[in-house]
Amino acid sequence: MAKIPVAVVGASGYGGVQLVRLILGHPYLELVYLGGDSSAGQEFADIYPHLGHQLHCVVEPVDAQVIARKAQVVFLSLPNGVAPGLVPDLLAQGCQVFDLSADYRFRDMQIYQTWYGIERTDGAVAAKAVYGLPELYRESLVNATLVGCPGCYPTASLLALAPLLRQGLVAWDSIVIDAKSGTSGGGRQAKTHLLLAEADNSISAYGVGRHRHRPEIEQVCGDLAGQPVKVQFTPHLVPMVRGILATVYAQVRDPGLTTEDLLLIYQAFYRGKPWVRVLPPGVYPHTKWAWGTNMCYLGLELDPHTDRVIVISAIDNLLKGQAGQAVQCLNISRGWPETTGLPQLSFYP
Amino acid sequence: MAKIPVAVVGASGYGGVQLVRLILGHPYLELVYLGGDSSAGQEFADIYPHLGHQLHCVVEPVDAQVIARKAQVVFLSLPNGVAPGLVPDLLAQGCQVFDLSADYRFRDMQIYQTWYGIERTDGAVAAKAVYGLPELYRESLVNATLVGCPGCYPTASLLALAPLLRQGLVAWDSIVIDAKSGTSGGGRQAKTHLLLAEADNSISAYGVGRHRHRPEIEQVCGDLAGQPVKVQFTPHLVPMVRGILATVYAQVRDPGLTTEDLLLIYQAFYRGKPWVRVLPPGVYPHTKWAWGTNMCYLGLELDPHTDRVIVISAIDNLLKGQAGQAVQCLNISRGWPETTGLPQLSFYP
Amino acid sequence: MAKIPVAVVGASGYGGVQLVRLILGHPYLELVYLGGDSSAGQEFADIYPHLGHQLHCVVEPVDAQVIARKAQVVFLSLPNGVAPGLVPDLLAQGCQVFDLSADYRFRDMQIYQTWYGIERTDGAVAAKAVYGLPELYRESLVNATLVGCPGCYPTASLLALAPLLRQGLVAWDSIVIDAKSGTSGGGRQAKTHLLLAEADNSISAYGVGRHRHRPEIEQVCGDLAGQPVKVQFTPHLVPMVRGILATVYAQVRDPGLTTEDLLLIYQAFYRGKPWVRVLPPGVYPHTKWAWGTNMCYLGLELDPHTDRVIVISAIDNLLKGQAGQAVQCLNISRGWPETTGLPQLSFYP
Amino acid sequence: MAKIPVAVVGASGYGGVQLVRLILGHPYLELVYLGGDSSAGQEFADIYPHLGHQLHCVVEPVDAQVIARKAQVVFLSLPNGVAPGLVPDLLAQGCQVFDLSADYRFRDMQIYQTWYGIERTDGAVAAKAVYGLPELYRESLVNATLVGCPGCYPTASLLALAPLLRQGLVAWDSIVIDAKSGTSGGGRQAKTHLLLAEADNSISAYGVGRHRHRPEIEQVCGDLAGQPVKVQFTPHLVPMVRGILATVYAQVRDPGLTTEDLLLIYQAFYRGKPWVRVLPPGVYPHTKWAWGTNMCYLGLELDPHTDRVIVISAIDNLLKGQAGQAVQCLNISRGWPETTGLPQLSFYP
Repeated sequence: MAKIPVAVVGASGYGGVQLVRLILGHPYLELVYLGGDSSAGQEFADIYPHLGHQLHCVVEPVDAQVIARKAQVVFLSLPNGVAPGLVPDLLAQGCQVFDLSADYRFRDMQIYQTWYGIERTDGAVAAKAVYGLPELYRESLVNATLVGCPGCYPTASLLALAPLLRQGLVAWDSIVIDAKSGTSGGGRQAKTHLLLAEADNSISAYGVGRHRHRPEIEQVCGDLAGQPVKVQFTPHLVPMVRGILATVYAQVRDPGLTTEDLLLIYQAFYRGKPWVRVLPPGVYPHTKWAWGTNMCYLGLELDPHTDRVIVISAIDNLLKGQAGQAVQCLNISRGWPETTGLPQLSFYP
Repeated sequence: MAKIPVAVVGASGYGGVQLVRLILGHPYLELVYLGGDSSAGQEFADIYPHLGHQLHCVVEPVDAQVIARKAQVVFLSLPNGVAPGLVPDLLAQGCQVFDLSADYRFRDMQIYQTWYGIERTDGAVAAKAVYGLPELYRESLVNATLVGCPGCYPTASLLALAPLLRQGLVAWDSIVIDAKSGTSGGGRQAKTHLLLAEADNSISAYGVGRHRHRPEIEQVCGDLAGQPVKVQFTPHLVPMVRGILATVYAQVRDPGLTTEDLLLIYQAFYRGKPWVRVLPPGVYPHTKWAWGTNMCYLGLELDPHTDRVIVISAIDNLLKGQAGQAVQCLNISRGWPETTGLPQLSFYP
Repeated sequence: MAKIPVAVVGASGYGGVQLVRLILGHPYLELVYLGGDSSAGQEFADIYPHLGHQLHCVVEPVDAQVIARKAQVVFLSLPNGVAPGLVPDLLAQGCQVFDLSADYRFRDMQIYQTWYGIERTDGAVAAKAVYGLPELYRESLVNATLVGCPGCYPTASLLALAPLLRQGLVAWDSIVIDAKSGTSGGGRQAKTHLLLAEADNSISAYGVGRHRHRPEIEQVCGDLAGQPVKVQFTPHLVPMVRGILATVYAQVRDPGLTTEDLLLIYQAFYRGKPWVRVLPPGVYPHTKWAWGTNMCYLGLELDPHTDRVIVISAIDNLLKGQAGQAVQCLNISRGWPETTGLPQLSFYP
Repeated sequence: MAKIPVAVVGASGYGGVQLVRLILGHPYLELVYLGGDSSAGQEFADIYPHLGHQLHCVVEPVDAQVIARKAQVVFLSLPNGVAPGLVPDLLAQGCQVFDLSADYRFRDMQIYQTWYGIERTDGAVAAKAVYGLPELYRESLVNATLVGCPGCYPTASLLALAPLLRQGLVAWDSIVIDAKSGTSGGGRQAKTHLLLAEADNSISAYGVGRHRHRPEIEQVCGDLAGQPVKVQFTPHLVPMVRGILATVYAQVRDPGLTTEDLLLIYQAFYRGKPWVRVLPPGVYPHTKWAWGTNMCYLGLELDPHTDRVIVISAIDNLLKGQAGQAVQCLNISRGWPETTGLPQLSFYP
């Protein structure tokens, strides 16, 4: 099979370099274009010298015409608000687009505009985008041409919640998501609070009660529950590079449920889904288990003292939470095995 | 004023070395005895060489008679279940005892035995112990002879919850405590899961639904609320040395409450309490702010989307969560200013 | 091609789990046996739950007969001194053995006994062992049946020094190796000084002037130079999980040499060696570049102020410094491409 | 005694916040002015919220007239090249100045200009500056009005080397300094390579053969040796917040010297110097021992295999390597005990 030519736009960020790494190891893909504005003109190996023996490629200024001439598949890893200036053009010229920003994740453009403060005129295009969480929207991904890949927090949170919501097992207003992220989630741009000297050996909450990922999570929760769901979402910054741990709390409707019942329900829900692993009773995931892989690990407990279920999910925020998931979506859209070119085992420790 | 002679028993652990550090810097205390069983016979400076220029002292085998002959104040920093073999003797000989283990924190010996699996025959002694959380039990600490100092998780959780419970502002069954601890909370004994190679760059939950600090927290919550309170408590291990962050969620009874209202309530509650600082609106604490100090920082938010209050507290688990708090209790018991000999400002970063 | 059955003995340590990970991803190998004494009887997935979806295997007590019945290739990842009790048997029964301990690295059993304090009676077997540093002993590895794989410090140090010594460019008595290691080099056994609470945010030297890796380095330096060479070797413990950085200093004989000259010499020396990458001028390696790969990155500088060359090498201590190198040796011994089944690109950051 | 009014200029950086912390705890000093250009107009507690309960102070634009009106002692913690625009004015108006930049460390302005690329016209002022390393230049510090405080690398390196050079014990051309620094040495400004995501779990060398601290070190080595000395200096970035470890190698002239001899020489040299502690034989310092203190710990070994002495020094780069040393210089200049207001014991771990 001839390899499919692929472009990565926004190549110098962490999403970009993960995409490059995955594409170089993917049997059906060929990297033909790296684009970026701040890094245009630079050798990619000058930005990431560890790739110098594998990749000789200059970052090009972003130009939809050039991209469409070279690539059939385009991954966009850009700041929010930039993709809408490229996507209509790319689609018109026959490209398949996987966008890693928030721009094509929302069904309701009004919600997007409220939370992101960006005017949008491409509502018709956005309406056709598929939400790229394959465990929940697999059918829509087959042959999809525009995929809005979810953020890292929603991925971890929704995989923890989905079986509960789909089966109506918990009180709709009882969901608390206490999420913890490594600092790479904040990107590669220099920001004071992400300096090692600031962020190391310290944990803190941020965006309490008003983080942008809350409406994204609620949109999908609504799909799963078949009715609006409000969630409490609190992100935290953890002194580590990669990984998200989401600790999710909800009140069960039926106090007779046990941990074993719920594990069976979760195992059934995720059967045949290679990127989610439900752990044995009493085992809760460590984010490091997922480091460098596309896995999501889930552990859970039903607490009879409080009639709450606690579900804990762990992913690598840059893979299952970003670049890996985008490749997983591509695999599904093309009919390839879902695991193609994606790492399953971490180099623990 | 003649300095008061002080003993530290269990000196080689993290609680012990913090106590040593604090006593050396305290104007009214003199360190006269270091005890420990596993380290008996060793020069303390061989265990902690960085103290070698300040302290020349051999660790002695633990013997209540010897301790009582030398010291008026005794800090016990021992594994759970050991203190009851020493405390009745020490008290009988006139010592004042500050115990850092769980042994003298529980009013109900039955609850202690259930959770710690240790038989106790010193119920009469235990009944006289004061729970050493000065912001809540200050009056009882004056002239106290036996203080059971709280654990690090309860300290952070209870300081976050106290104003809400005392004033009955939240639904009793709605409290979720998602707590995050540095690895020094696990002590200095070599355990595989606390190795840097295991714990670094990874976060995980443990003891979900069944951690021993839950009944301790519920005992004090009951005191504050004047009725039984059940809490959800989930501890996490965070890749950092020191610090606890507790993120506490509760449903407010009156949906008209605002963040500003709650901040006023908290400021009033903690007025005149030098070791708690309520942060301005929109500011949430970082654990590193408390590093090396006896401070507890509190930030909060009322989320009108869910009618939940989220309170976030940060302490240094080895100071306000352990040794510092014990010295604070001693200060109060003796009528000294509460801040005597305790550090208020971290060496940030 | 039928896959070759492989045994890993000492599977529960860090060397072992890396080997398992690599074997699971190697196209020509099949993992048929996991052995270990302390973990015998345990499900491997109970020790490393992140592997539970890929591996169902109980760790067996170590028994050379059982191993030889099941496996053709045996990796030994055991404490020093244990392998000699197994290796003669394994070889006699036709196994090919790759030993990761120090036991088969020394040509002179006297030196081994001096530094390791272990009596040896298998001198004849040891004499046939090949030193498993493929960039220097590739020819001897072809069809080798017993390979003593080098330690992580010698690998990083020798790859930095080899071109200088082979060509006689530096004064024999001028070599200083200042090496820095992550804590996983100390293994997975619980030791106080490797606790996160102790090792994090601290760097220290150890074994100054008397580390066991010095005679191992000097043995190979002697081979390269054709005469005895003494080196100064100082290891340091760095607050990170993986990686070794060796900063090597030596006085050049010809003060006319330039950085560019030396880079050409290094590039020529390592041409065709896929696991060593000589970096461009002015670029010095970061250990994280090698994380999770079998690469060795080399950067160098000739300082005209002092007429010293400074060479800096970076590897992942558990891969190129341990398990990866063992698989590289296996690949060569079997005539497979040297890169088979080994990762080349890190998941930076 | 009335407290002396003190100004800190460049207050928002790491040097600045350490100075603020130390001044707040110093019995003879009163903080009266915080200056800074990038942070002018901000409440200091908005930059460092953990200080909000102790300090209510707005950062003012830098103006020598205003400073001189308010303060008798001025600490300058500014980027290189800024101080010369302030210092002559401040001195003229009677202020005593402690400069933490490189601007007043060099006796030879030509060397400064070569390495820093900054033209200087205040040679006459610079000529009167005292190099603020109290263990070597104590007499000159008494009543000094302008002190150029040394950088963190020179402090650690020179305290390790001083006894060897003063007594002529080592070959002048044999000195290699392999130094390792935490990332706070790079300051608080946002730089990509100092992000936690980049710098964590990685160690690397930089400025190999051409770091600005080399000529500074050589100037003082020349003073000590009484003749020019060339050193090899290689700095490394270590994944930790604070601390410098310098591993120093030199060839001894007299091969009969022993470790014990050298320890005696070091103890004699540093007798009566409260901020240097020579460790017992076989003990080498960990940087964490010095964390949060003004201590320098020294360990050493004479290696009879190579006739080299290896001296290892550890300091907190922001205290003994920066702000603490400046306060130590002030103490000496005013005739106060050298330890006044400076921390001696770390909050280990």
